[in-house]
Amino acid sequence: MPTEDELRATLIRYTEAFSAGDADAWVGLFTEDATVEDPVGSPKHVGRDAIRAFFEAGHAMADKITLTIKEGPVVCGSEGSFAMEVMSEMGGATIVLTAIDVMTFDDAGAITSQRAFWSPSGIRTL
Amino acid sequence: MPTEDELRATLIRYTEAFSAGDADAWVGLFTEDATVEDPVGSPKHVGRDAIRAFFEAGHAMADKITLTIKEGPVVCGSEGSFAMEVMSEMGGATIVLTAIDVMTFDDAGAITSQRAFWSPSGIRTL
Repeated sequence: MPTEDELRATLIRYTEAFSAGDADAWVGLFTEDATVEDPVGSPKHVGRDAIRAFFEAGHAMADKITLTIKEGPVVCGSEGSFAMEVMSEMGGATIVLTAIDVMTFDDAGAITSQRAFWSPSGIRTL
Repeated sequence: MPTEDELRATLIRYTEAFSAGDADAWVGLFTEDATVEDPVGSPKHVGRDAIRAFFEAGHAMADKITLTIKEGPVVCGSEGSFAMEVMSEMGGATIVLTAIDVMTFDDAGAITSQRAFWSPSGIRTL
């Protein structure tokens, strides 16, 4: 099992690759059969192809999306979490929301599941 | 099912009752058979009696514990999460750490499970 610091670094890379629009780097953090539930309660995206499609759909909606970690990452064994600000620039508008992500990892440190807590009610303009 | 705002209010009360040292109010937010996994990966405290014992053990270790929400609460359906600073005053020392809590609720809005992400490695002096 990777160390706590290594898993924290993976979660930081998760936000950096997403913000950079680097689909290959971002999808590469997941296992082949990983799941993404974003937001929590919505149907899961299962497997890397579906996760890549989720990434692309998100980036197609905005000119730029920037994830900024606000609290954490905190890692406990094979699970981790962090709170972030999600800033989306769309045309002349910039909207932000708070999201809290919870991930599980496999023994090699790849992400096996992601669950993202966020709510449309939390969206605000900057 | 309670509204998103009602569940957010419960999570705020959770931090307020804990900070006030009000065991009755805090334990009363949970269902009779609720579970507390604090930190994530440790054995669960199962049921209100065990949850009260966990509360009392935590408060016995410090003169004062103050929970301050930093991000969220964010509620998705019957689940919610928030990031907080936990400040513990013990004698002449004050230590803080970041914790991210994830809760599930029953249809009446009582907490059925709590999982708290925090790590000893995140403890710092103030």
